[in-house]
Formats: sequence, structure tokens, C-alpha cells
Amino acid sequence: MPALTYTLLREDGDPGSRARLGRVETPHGGFDTPAFMPVGTAASVKGLLPEAVGSIGAQIILSNTYHLLLRPGEELVQRMGGLQKWMRWDGPVLTDSGGYQVFSFADKNSIGDDGVKFRSHLDGREIHLSPERSIAVQNALGADIIMAFDDCPPAPDRPEVVEATALGPRHAVPDAEYQARLAQANDRTARWLARCVKAHQRPADQALFGIVQGGIDLDARRQSVEQVCQHDLPGFAIGGVAVGEGFDQLKRVTEHTAPLLPEDRPRYLMGVGYERDLVTAVRAGVDMFDCVLPTRNARNANAFTPFGQIRLRNARFSEDERVLDAGCDCPACAGGFSRSYLRHLFIAGEMLGGILLSLHNLRHFQRLMLDIRAAIRDNTWSAVGRHWPVTLAEGPG
Amino acid sequence: MPALTYTLLREDGDPGSRARLGRVETPHGGFDTPAFMPVGTAASVKGLLPEAVGSIGAQIILSNTYHLLLRPGEELVQRMGGLQKWMRWDGPVLTDSGGYQVFSFADKNSIGDDGVKFRSHLDGREIHLSPERSIAVQNALGADIIMAFDDCPPAPDRPEVVEATALGPRHAVPDAEYQARLAQANDRTARWLARCVKAHQRPADQALFGIVQGGIDLDARRQSVEQVCQHDLPGFAIGGVAVGEGFDQLKRVTEHTAPLLPEDRPRYLMGVGYERDLVTAVRAGVDMFDCVLPTRNARNANAFTPFGQIRLRNARFSEDERVLDAGCDCPACAGGFSRSYLRHLFIAGEMLGGILLSLHNLRHFQRLMLDIRAAIRDNTWSAVGRHWPVTLAEGPG
Ligand SMILES: [Zn+2]
Ligand SMILES: [Zn+2]
Repeated sequence: MPALTYTLLREDGDPGSRARLGRVETPHGGFDTPAFMPVGTAASVKGLLPEAVGSIGAQIILSNTYHLLLRPGEELVQRMGGLQKWMRWDGPVLTDSGGYQVFSFADKNSIGDDGVKFRSHLDGREIHLSPERSIAVQNALGADIIMAFDDCPPAPDRPEVVEATALGPRHAVPDAEYQARLAQANDRTARWLARCVKAHQRPADQALFGIVQGGIDLDARRQSVEQVCQHDLPGFAIGGVAVGEGFDQLKRVTEHTAPLLPEDRPRYLMGVGYERDLVTAVRAGVDMFDCVLPTRNARNANAFTPFGQIRLRNARFSEDERVLDAGCDCPACAGGFSRSYLRHLFIAGEMLGGILLSLHNLRHFQRLMLDIRAAIRDNTWSAVGRHWPVTLAEGPG
Repeated sequence: MPALTYTLLREDGDPGSRARLGRVETPHGGFDTPAFMPVGTAASVKGLLPEAVGSIGAQIILSNTYHLLLRPGEELVQRMGGLQKWMRWDGPVLTDSGGYQVFSFADKNSIGDDGVKFRSHLDGREIHLSPERSIAVQNALGADIIMAFDDCPPAPDRPEVVEATALGPRHAVPDAEYQARLAQANDRTARWLARCVKAHQRPADQALFGIVQGGIDLDARRQSVEQVCQHDLPGFAIGGVAVGEGFDQLKRVTEHTAPLLPEDRPRYLMGVGYERDLVTAVRAGVDMFDCVLPTRNARNANAFTPFGQIRLRNARFSEDERVLDAGCDCPACAGGFSRSYLRHLFIAGEMLGGILLSLHNLRHFQRLMLDIRAAIRDNTWSAVGRHWPVTLAEGPG
């Protein structure tokens, strides 16, 4: 019995779409794909009881190895019975490798073939993260899906690429250095993946996903797919797309890369994204997503609606008796909380504002995924466009 | 039909106790007494959905006129349909008069017979709070129970009195000035109450409670009761006990004052308190309490247990797999969240820690009130002491 099984239930009837309806099973339960995973950075989806996260429709959540490694440390989590038991989440969990955070924060000179050295942002102690160490930490945390430790290069500083998605703290690299950095990253990613596979101690109950790199160079993407897919892994991810490239590059890279990945394994587009990004990537053949947008924007008083985000701090909402979205069944909307009251909570610094908006925003994305899965099953893509105008819009949503 | 009815269901069978079992009905529903009211300062019990506040057993909550007057302003709340509708709390609400905060923050020289002038801590604008203005604000907010605007003197600076309860921001007055200040406060409280009664525009659906002052001087307390109870009001409160006097004075003053109040009206001891305070005051004949302790201490990582508080930041809890209180049925304890995980949430700055502890601490106090009501009904006071050792303990709990 492998750690993960993927069942492809249906391929999209729309000839312009490669979307797939599927089901993933893990030791802690299953989830329907295409799936959106809320982010619970430090073993907590901020402000929400796990029960609430489940009740708005999430079936799998993501947690960050980097944060848990620093605090409380993976060994404590292991002694407490693993991530799922410790945080009381009754479902599958995915952990990232920690590489993304470490590459963002580390000095360029501390990145080498053996891994990355960095100083903890908490207490300054020096920590070394390598393929072996990342897998050991993830083995200790015990998530159902764990990610390879890869080398994710930043985006090039071309004007058409730097159009902001405001996702990711990483700076662009000078265009002249970009090809060399891509080649180095592909090479390292391939060699590090072999080390991750070898280091993985729990293949029977933790599914290790490989990650494809290659930036916005389609040949480099193809090469990376060939290298990464030499390993017979239970799933594959597309990395390095959510680092500032913007929608056009995301579409171009994903439509090129996703179909190259094995059809009988789940495909995960890391760190993406806005509603239009999700629809585009699903139609390119992607099955899994994670993003901090719903919860981070909620804490900043931005609510997602089918017509785009609204900024609740705006004075025009001060006496708006409407709920955030009349078509939404989340605890904030179904509970009848008005925009007026929600605005007050943010203005008064009451944490209930961020909590209610997190519930709403997460439900917004889960409802979109429900409609996407229905569209694949019933050939109703036009309804998705009608119900979610934001998926058709220009701009970052 | 008056705004509030009180039904005295049973007087305590214990000859040493004047405790009363009762039921209060208001336009937005009823509550059992003795009752403990969670505090929702700015129209929100911090971090909790109203549904969660109800589900841990609270039947009535308190909100602060001072905070709502400043932000968002009472007129907005009124236009949005009143406090209960706006904040989606399906039950009775009590508002205080704003006097307590104003007296704490105001310069001594801005307190006069006409009221108090103070500057908003938000934007510096000058605001004048008088009996008429306090009642007008509370009429606009629309709580089921509203409080008279009274003059609450600080405690004297005697050593035996200053033993800290850490409740209330007010400083002590020099002992030599104390009697004069008490007399002035009683006098003003009586004159201001007459003005409150006259200003009250909604007696049919808002119950105005009078407040007895008199500090720790029992004669002054008796005099204040006589003055305040000249008005045929639906309820009466004992003020000025939670301003730093400590348990012995709380016991002495409450046992003296509560029995002087009309038997057929609810009696409310404002701003109290720890578990032992509640048991003592209930046995003196008090029916209603409010206190910020459960929620404030929760946000500071202090969890109440029947044996006293535990500080979850303490390293000894880092791998403690036990729940906060094995006998508790709150979402934190019944949900199986370990002290280890809860400690992590606080150390990592995750707001779920404060949320789970708020649920637990509020449920702790509601469970104590359930046991207190059962003790009055079934003569089982000894069980209260056995199940809640903290109610027998020395010190502030
Ligand atoms: Zn909603
Ligand atoms: Zn509990």
C-alpha cells in the first residue's frame, strides 16, 4: 500500500481544457481534486479552529517546515505524535521543504551545493538546511505529503515579468545572469531530489513529491520535467511560478509544463494564487494549489467576492448593511454579519474581523473549487465564468 | 409589560447563605441567575463568534458605552438596528454607563457636578459625558439593561486595602481625603441617578439599573442604598468594589450591602471577579456579575483551572500532552488540544491560542455558575468547594 493513491475520475469534455477531476487518498484521509489547500504556517490556520477549517470545505492543509523547524522544533512535534494529532486536524497535511523561505532570506553566498546556511530570524542561531535535513525534519513532522528540497531561482528583472503579483519576498535577478542561474537551479534540483529520495525514511506513509523548476524558460522547464520524472514519485509539483512573474507567465509556463507531467500522478502548482490563476492552471491540468492570499488578505481587511476584492476599511462600508457576498454560505455571510459591523471590527482592532474574513475568503476559494470540479464533471465551464466574473478579469484579481 | 422581569425561584437552604436562584427576562431573551456576563468591549467578545459565546453557556453579555461612543459612535449603531442586531448576538446585552472608564482616564479637575470632560484616546477630541448624555448614548445603542451614570470614587490608600487584585486602572486616594470623597460621590450618584431616570427615553424596552456607591465605609453604603432605592428601578448594582480593595473588603462590603437591596429585583456586582469572589458574593445575595478576567487572562496565556490559574508560557508545559482541565467540556478541552500545542500557539504568536483559551476560561466561569446554581437548587454547596478548590483558596485565585 503506497502512502498516496491518485484516481483520475474524469478528463474535461471541453476540448480547450486539460482539466482533470480526481481523488487523492492518504493515511489521514482523502481529498477531491482540483483542490485548494489553506495555509497553516505554524501548525495553525491563523485564527481558526481546525473544525472551522474543515467546515468551510477544506480537506487538506499546508504547513511550513521552515517555521516549525525553528519553533517548536520537529522533534517536539514528533514526540507529541506528529503534526495532525498535535494540531487536532482530522485530515491530510502537506509540508513544504523549507527551501522557499530559506532561499528568500539567505545571503546568496550561503547557498551551496550542499544546501543553505541561514540564521534563525528568532534567535540568530545558524541553521543548515540540506536535502537530507529537510526530509528528516519532514519525516519527523509526519505530514502525509512532503516536498523535495529544491533550488528555486528568482524571476528575471525584465519589465514584462516584474508586473507585480505581490506574491513572494524574493527579488528579481539581472536578466543577463538569468539563464545561468536557471541551469544551476535545474541541475541542483535534480541532484538534490536524488538525495531526498535516498534520505526519505517513511515512504510507506509519507508521499514525497518532486518539484519541477525552470523559471519562465520553456526548454528549461522541459529539461527539469525529464530530470525530476526519472524518479517514480507519487506526485509532482511545479515550483517557481509564484515568485513575481505575473499572470501571463504563469499561464504560459503552466500550460507548457503541466501536460508534460505523468497523467496518473497528482500535479501541484505551488503558491498559486488568484481565482483566474486557479481556473487557468486547472484547465492546464493542475490538481492541487496552496496560497496564503485568502487568510493574509483577510487579516488586512480585504474580502474576496466574485467581482473582485473589497477593502473593508473604506469609509463607504461604514453603514453598509449587506453581507460580504449574498451568494456565500460562510459563517460571516450566512451568519448575517454586515459590512458595517465587519468594518467596525477592523477599525477597532478587534481580531474577530480577521477571523470572519478568513472564514469568508477561505470559503470563497473552496466554493470556486466546488464550481470548478462541477464544471469538469458536467461540462459547465461557462457557468464558472458567469458566477465568478473575477476569473475572466484582467489584473491580479 | 416592563423592560425586565425578575423571578426569584428559590432561596438558599443553607442557613449561612443568602444566595438566590432566579430568572431574568428581557426583550432579547432571558438568563438564569446567578449569572456571569462575558465582556464584549467594542461589540465583540474578543476573538469569538457570538455563536461560540452562546455555545459555551453565556446567556447575556456586557458591552462598553465608552468604547462604542468613541467608535463607531452610538448613532451608527442605532441606524444599523441596535447593538444586538448589529453584532449578531441573539440574546440580551447590558451596557455600562461609560463612567468607570471616564473617571479613570479623566483629569481630576475635569470632573464636576455636571459630569466629566475628557479627551478621546483615539483622536484627542473633547467629549463631555453627563448623566443625560450617557443615557442618550445607551438609549441609542439599545441594550436590554443600561446602567446609571454614577460617581465611583477610588479606593483609599490604606495598606490593608491596596492588596492588589490587579483589577481596574484607578489609583488610590489619600486616606485623609477618603471620607470627603465618599460623601461627595454618594451625593452626586444620587443626584445623577434622578437625572438619568428623567433622561431615560426607552423605559419600556430598556431596564435602567441604579448603582450603589459608598466605598468600603459601611455607613456610606447604607446611605447610598437608601438614596438609590428611592427610585423604583428594575434592578440595582453594587459599584466601586472592583477598584482594588481586595477580597476581604469585597466580602465585607458585599455581605453588608447586597441584603439591603430590594429582594424582588436582580442585584449586580460590577466588575467582579475571581472564582472565590463570585461564590462569596452569590452567598451574600448577588445575582449578576461581569468581568474581563476570563478573556483578558486568556489572551495573556493564563488558563483558569479548578485548582488555580496556569501560565501556559511556562516551559514545563512544552511537552505536556494533557488538556487544560480534564473535567472541562469546552472546545479546547473537549477538542483535545494539548497544553503543549496551546503553549506553542502563544510562543509562536498565533491568535488561535488566545481564542482557545478564551473559550476555555469563559466556559470555566460558566461551569462554575452552573454548579453554583445547582448548589442553591439542591443544597450542594460542599460539592462546589470540592470541585472548585480555587474558591476556597487564599489569594486572588
Ligand atoms: Zn462569506
Ligand atoms: Zn476547557
